[in-house]
Amino acid sequence: MKNIAILGASGSVGQQALDVIREHASQFNLVAFSVGKNIAYAQNIIEEFRPELVSVQREEDMEKLKHLDVELVHGEMGLLSVATYHKTDLLLNSILGSIGLRPTMSAIDAGIDIGLANKETLVAAGELVMAKAKEKNVKILPVDSEHSAIFQCLNGEHQQDINKLIITASGGSFRDLTREDLKNVTLEDALNHPNWSMGQKITIDSATMMNKGLEVIEAKWLFNLDINQIETVLHKESIIHSMVEFKDTSVIAQLGTPDMRTPIQYAFTYPKRATRDAEKLNLAQIGQLNFEEMDFSRFKCIQFAYDAIKIGGTMPVVLNAVNEVAVHKFLNNEISFLAIEDMIEEAMKEHEVIEHPDLDTILKVDAAYKSKDYGV
Amino acid sequence: MKNIAILGASGSVGQQALDVIREHASQFNLVAFSVGKNIAYAQNIIEEFRPELVSVQREEDMEKLKHLDVELVHGEMGLLSVATYHKTDLLLNSILGSIGLRPTMSAIDAGIDIGLANKETLVAAGELVMAKAKEKNVKILPVDSEHSAIFQCLNGEHQQDINKLIITASGGSFRDLTREDLKNVTLEDALNHPNWSMGQKITIDSATMMNKGLEVIEAKWLFNLDINQIETVLHKESIIHSMVEFKDTSVIAQLGTPDMRTPIQYAFTYPKRATRDAEKLNLAQIGQLNFEEMDFSRFKCIQFAYDAIKIGGTMPVVLNAVNEVAVHKFLNNEISFLAIEDMIEEAMKEHEVIEHPDLDTILKVDAAYKSKDYGV
Repeated sequence: MKNIAILGASGSVGQQALDVIREHASQFNLVAFSVGKNIAYAQNIIEEFRPELVSVQREEDMEKLKHLDVELVHGEMGLLSVATYHKTDLLLNSILGSIGLRPTMSAIDAGIDIGLANKETLVAAGELVMAKAKEKNVKILPVDSEHSAIFQCLNGEHQQDINKLIITASGGSFRDLTREDLKNVTLEDALNHPNWSMGQKITIDSATMMNKGLEVIEAKWLFNLDINQIETVLHKESIIHSMVEFKDTSVIAQLGTPDMRTPIQYAFTYPKRATRDAEKLNLAQIGQLNFEEMDFSRFKCIQFAYDAIKIGGTMPVVLNAVNEVAVHKFLNNEISFLAIEDMIEEAMKEHEVIEHPDLDTILKVDAAYKSKDYGV
Repeated sequence: MKNIAILGASGSVGQQALDVIREHASQFNLVAFSVGKNIAYAQNIIEEFRPELVSVQREEDMEKLKHLDVELVHGEMGLLSVATYHKTDLLLNSILGSIGLRPTMSAIDAGIDIGLANKETLVAAGELVMAKAKEKNVKILPVDSEHSAIFQCLNGEHQQDINKLIITASGGSFRDLTREDLKNVTLEDALNHPNWSMGQKITIDSATMMNKGLEVIEAKWLFNLDINQIETVLHKESIIHSMVEFKDTSVIAQLGTPDMRTPIQYAFTYPKRATRDAEKLNLAQIGQLNFEEMDFSRFKCIQFAYDAIKIGGTMPVVLNAVNEVAVHKFLNNEISFLAIEDMIEEAMKEHEVIEHPDLDTILKVDAAYKSKDYGV
């Protein structure tokens, strides 16, 4: 029995992780989780899974759950308590945004293996996180479908045999639109992702291609490669989830129907696999897989991401923080779709990079760019 | 330095294996090889690679090479000498036909790992060969691109996690023709394979789909699976060389440009890889991969293969032997393309199966069906 803790249990990945635990009740046990403000949901999860520790965002919400047989904590300290809960074998960090960074570091310090769905952890602090994971001999297991794919392709292989990674990109909701078309797209259009059922933030990040940019940076840290070894290719069907090219020209790919529960489960069962009673891939039925070169002028955000990681230091922190703010504004109908790019470009231009930032510096820069007045 | 011996050095796979040794002269050393009647070729190879032992088919051909500093042997005993040469680390068995069976068994007995390109070994005697390999702790490393692909996809995985194998089939030279069209195809048409540069026998076997049938049987033995766990899919580009579906619905695939040197080299370097200075896969350039269900009524030979392995015993021996005879007759313009199927179907109908045949029985049945008068 593997004891699982989940940060961000009410998010899209968190909910699908609970599906995995539900489907394999004899293998996995939910011992702790955090939610934000969705207390009714938390109550259901507590009643169904009987965890020992639960964190909510606001102190006042603890009251609503105190009739249940569970230890309650709250706020940032609550997240840290869940992240480091002593009975946990694997922490799934599926919390959204840079708030996931400190809990990841704490869990690593506590020697707990991590299923990582929180992109910001590696984008903002990949160097620190991976160094500490190595020091503490903690596994960082990717949960993103692309990184899980690469991780699976690397099974039994040798690091020095890797030539490059090829991350596939669906192109998101607006893959067939020109930049001219993008001027007039609405929030509703953007939230309609063709392949994946995901949260709002990541759906917008897919439409801007920032999601792929963040993934490229994540992959660099996760697999300890040079950024020039990481390529992307447009693949609208999202069937090949990513690939690894080895130095003998062989390419290994992982494929499947787009369903986040598969990579989540793999992180839970690694290095083994468990049965999933889900739709199987049928390539003959699909008929055709299509590939196109990434268009860096059409999708400026992925160019920003490559630029940011090449510049290094605190630049990826800025990339990510301003993107979070901009997407939030777009989701609130405060700015247009293309203004997301403009905000990021502007901020990166003006940012004075701090080299080799420590965790406090990273969090300070992150906070500064999140509270900044962008005048939009 | 790994010492390599090659059975069938002048064939298509043999020649490409020599390319691999040539390209990695600091890693591989040719210690022994066999050829048929191509003595001029043998002389070149001896002069270039300076092996210690060479086998030719006919005794009289030894004379032509005796001025060279190499030990010469001939005939079937010669093949066995090459197969069991004491300095060999890896034997590449790329000889054509069931004559490759006894050398494989002898090499296993001698504890020599085998790179297996000789399909007939596993088709005719898979159960015996794999049992002996297990007993002697000898590795059977696949060299066929499809089986090498599957072997690579299984790296670091667990046997009990396999759901099924999906072997891709290009469809061969006649993939877009109907059965009506096939009545009038010529030998020249058949030899024109769209994707792979291969020997004549295997090119015809691709056109009849018998090649895929033999591969299905090989895969069953090589990967120790039930025949119902082995599927095929038509994939005309031959870019995905084969796939494995695991029980969590994940599919791992191996891709590459069609070049036999990649799987040959992998058998030589396994479990590591070595650099190949060859064309790399560019999916964006290829643009599209297509898949179609295997058509068992269009390609009767693959149905025969499934039938033969399900019936078991000596039936696969008959399938293979009669196919060899029929393809030979077609290559000699003695029979039509569709008569290949007819000969096999007829022979399978009449054959009285011997269960659990030993090696002698297998070779006797094989010889009987090869010398039989088919009245065509």
